[in-house]
Amino acid sequence: MNAPLSFHSAGVPAALIEALSQRFGPRFTTALAVREQHGRDESPFDVPPPDAVVFAESTDEVAFVVAQAAAHRVPVIPYGAGSSLEGHLLAVQGGISLDVSRMNRVLQLHPEDLTVTVQPGVTRLQLNREIKDSGLFFPIDPGADASLGGMCATRASGTNAVRYGTMRENVLALEVVTASGEVIRTGTRAKKSSAGYDLTRLMLGSEGTLGVITEITLKLHPLPESVAAAVCFFPDVASAVNTTIQVIQMGVPIARCEFLDAHAVRAVNAHDRLGLREAPMLLMEFHGSDASVKEQAATVQEIAAEWGGADFEWATTPEERTRLWTARHHAYLSGLQMKPGCRAVTTDTCVPISHLAEGVTAALADAEAAGLPHFVVGHVGDGNFHIAYLIDPALPEERDTAERLNDAVVQRALAAQGTCTGEHGIGLHKQGFLVEETGAGSVALMRAIKQALDPLGIMNPGKIFAA
Amino acid sequence: MNAPLSFHSAGVPAALIEALSQRFGPRFTTALAVREQHGRDESPFDVPPPDAVVFAESTDEVAFVVAQAAAHRVPVIPYGAGSSLEGHLLAVQGGISLDVSRMNRVLQLHPEDLTVTVQPGVTRLQLNREIKDSGLFFPIDPGADASLGGMCATRASGTNAVRYGTMRENVLALEVVTASGEVIRTGTRAKKSSAGYDLTRLMLGSEGTLGVITEITLKLHPLPESVAAAVCFFPDVASAVNTTIQVIQMGVPIARCEFLDAHAVRAVNAHDRLGLREAPMLLMEFHGSDASVKEQAATVQEIAAEWGGADFEWATTPEERTRLWTARHHAYLSGLQMKPGCRAVTTDTCVPISHLAEGVTAALADAEAAGLPHFVVGHVGDGNFHIAYLIDPALPEERDTAERLNDAVVQRALAAQGTCTGEHGIGLHKQGFLVEETGAGSVALMRAIKQALDPLGIMNPGKIFAA
Repeated sequence: MNAPLSFHSAGVPAALIEALSQRFGPRFTTALAVREQHGRDESPFDVPPPDAVVFAESTDEVAFVVAQAAAHRVPVIPYGAGSSLEGHLLAVQGGISLDVSRMNRVLQLHPEDLTVTVQPGVTRLQLNREIKDSGLFFPIDPGADASLGGMCATRASGTNAVRYGTMRENVLALEVVTASGEVIRTGTRAKKSSAGYDLTRLMLGSEGTLGVITEITLKLHPLPESVAAAVCFFPDVASAVNTTIQVIQMGVPIARCEFLDAHAVRAVNAHDRLGLREAPMLLMEFHGSDASVKEQAATVQEIAAEWGGADFEWATTPEERTRLWTARHHAYLSGLQMKPGCRAVTTDTCVPISHLAEGVTAALADAEAAGLPHFVVGHVGDGNFHIAYLIDPALPEERDTAERLNDAVVQRALAAQGTCTGEHGIGLHKQGFLVEETGAGSVALMRAIKQALDPLGIMNPGKIFAA
Repeated sequence: MNAPLSFHSAGVPAALIEALSQRFGPRFTTALAVREQHGRDESPFDVPPPDAVVFAESTDEVAFVVAQAAAHRVPVIPYGAGSSLEGHLLAVQGGISLDVSRMNRVLQLHPEDLTVTVQPGVTRLQLNREIKDSGLFFPIDPGADASLGGMCATRASGTNAVRYGTMRENVLALEVVTASGEVIRTGTRAKKSSAGYDLTRLMLGSEGTLGVITEITLKLHPLPESVAAAVCFFPDVASAVNTTIQVIQMGVPIARCEFLDAHAVRAVNAHDRLGLREAPMLLMEFHGSDASVKEQAATVQEIAAEWGGADFEWATTPEERTRLWTARHHAYLSGLQMKPGCRAVTTDTCVPISHLAEGVTAALADAEAAGLPHFVVGHVGDGNFHIAYLIDPALPEERDTAERLNDAVVQRALAAQGTCTGEHGIGLHKQGFLVEETGAGSVALMRAIKQALDPLGIMNPGKIFAA
């Protein structure tokens, strides 16, 4: 289980406030409204906001802030789009929220190499808009229009990962401001490399605890010749998931394979007026040549039919496709509206694919028994699903129930040799689970790395492991 | 440029020899023949052999050796199949060669999850033999029948990486004996995870300098329904490489795309009696459904024709296919036989794909001008090629010439935002290039990690960076 949160702030010394306001003018602020806006994310936690917020517009500025913070031993919390789900942005030890959302330029597009270099505040939708004439796209899609810096920091993935991989597989190189305020580069634009320790991968998923990401070089992918999306409804949850399992086991190169339970379908119907059948559903997308897309779809239809899946309903136009995927991306917000004023406690386990059906089924049975409103969405092609428990933040017993249910979901995932977090990260919420999952020895090794790279403990302290 | 090698050994204290011979009996030895066999690899370096060799058969035994070595501050050099190319196995500071080749069991095959867990001494061919009835295969193929532990340690790749990725993308989890002799686990069997620092990727490519890998969990892939291999000959090097560039830019999911220059073709003809036309050649393989393989091949044939490529010659039977790929895998050894008694200095640059033709062409022109026998093979679909310069080890001026040529190849790759090593690693040979490539700040950060995880400096010291 996870320990309760603790937080404290030593405050920000006047000399640091002076140095930052001198350099940043109105882009440095201690105004409560701005601090509060930077003191929360999509997690269900409430903690005091950061002591100040600074809006950086260049790598030099980031380096200046970190060097100053190091000199005064004040925490720095990198801030992108604010869409984190596990409390990564919360100022549990006070300090400065370093907002990089204005570092939002696409710096270098190399269509001939299928690479692009961007600043960390560029969001995934912005990137795809800006490169759309190149015939290429960036597939990683966590649902929220997250910043690419934030997606690096949490090793994000989302709906396309089943075919295109996660941030782990799609980041070639980073520029990072280290905890001492030095600027380093990790990686090159080459597709692969064996040049020393994989600092790129070390930074991906480090949740701002080892440095601030200031530049990102990404792999791009050619837009597929043909794209087709379809929905398919199943008599029960297990049939939908088992269809997915078989599709993966057969090696069908499906691009997206998303599960929504009946509650989630009801929520998106209400929010986006879709009129979908309110039953367990797979929302799928196929990429490739015309022939390959047809072939993939035929194989999946055959498998679905064996599990009692209804005929595919195709989204034949790009507009219809966009409508379906937008609804999927709204599922989280749509779900929240099922219980006005609620907050969500969200699970994020990922398991070896053969264990997925039992995991989802058991999670749903427990949630029904507990009587908390909930819904399930899942990147089921990866073995990853989210059950969101809707709690009234004023009722501690609802939070306790949700945490107990979450705990059971995680324990089942760990027993199946899976992970407590497929894509959201550890943050504040899963520090106990991390130790259970990987063992005290591995966490000690992570701490040794943290200590070596951030000896003053100023980089987003209290995340991943308690400070 | 790279600094000259230095080496020294403090010797192994009698108490350590006593402890190891007591525990390991005849599996611990200081016999010169065994030490010499463990004191070299495929690199062109000569250094004194390790002081002793121990053959471990379990994780416990590895942990015992490392703990004893730590207690006596004696270096430990993990040893798998001995196929390293950059001096990783050489005892530049003396110490114990820890041979894990007898840890060669496939521990757990989970076909339903497309995963397998193996000991580090299992070789890639052995693994594919042992799992062949599962309908799955492990694609990573560096040519040599390397041990999977060694492939992890150098972040290896090879011919299939263009489609299936490298070790970076295909290792799910590791068991590692750390420098203090503790056993830790990194990762799970889940396909993706955001659980803390990516220790798996940190260990991959760490060349034995952070710990000894004792267990590996790998992703497997379904055997494709259809496989087709073909060769195609080109009027010049640039045309062959430009064909590849365009294939990649169009997103054709080609499984293997290997280049051999006319010298390499001549070498494999001589060695394997193949009768191939002695011209720049692509050796390709297509995986997928029947329809998809036909479609891919048609697209590539069209592109090749535009660059003056001859008609494809298909390897229609599995035996013919195996014959061609075996010849490709022999290319390095076949090439060595072009100059009896020679050794090879081998380059390993990898560049953004659009820069590949200029890189290969310039490397060949320089080599011709210098008059050293040479040949080129390349995983060109990844932007990675190797030029091997055949030198007489008795003639220092030939080594100097080869190193000068290698240096020029690397400088061109770095100028093109590529890497000095696509898949062989840094070892002893590229420590200067590593600093040029990634900068002193990044290397300092790698050293800080090394210091934190191996404070006594006993894990394969002197590799990646000088101790």
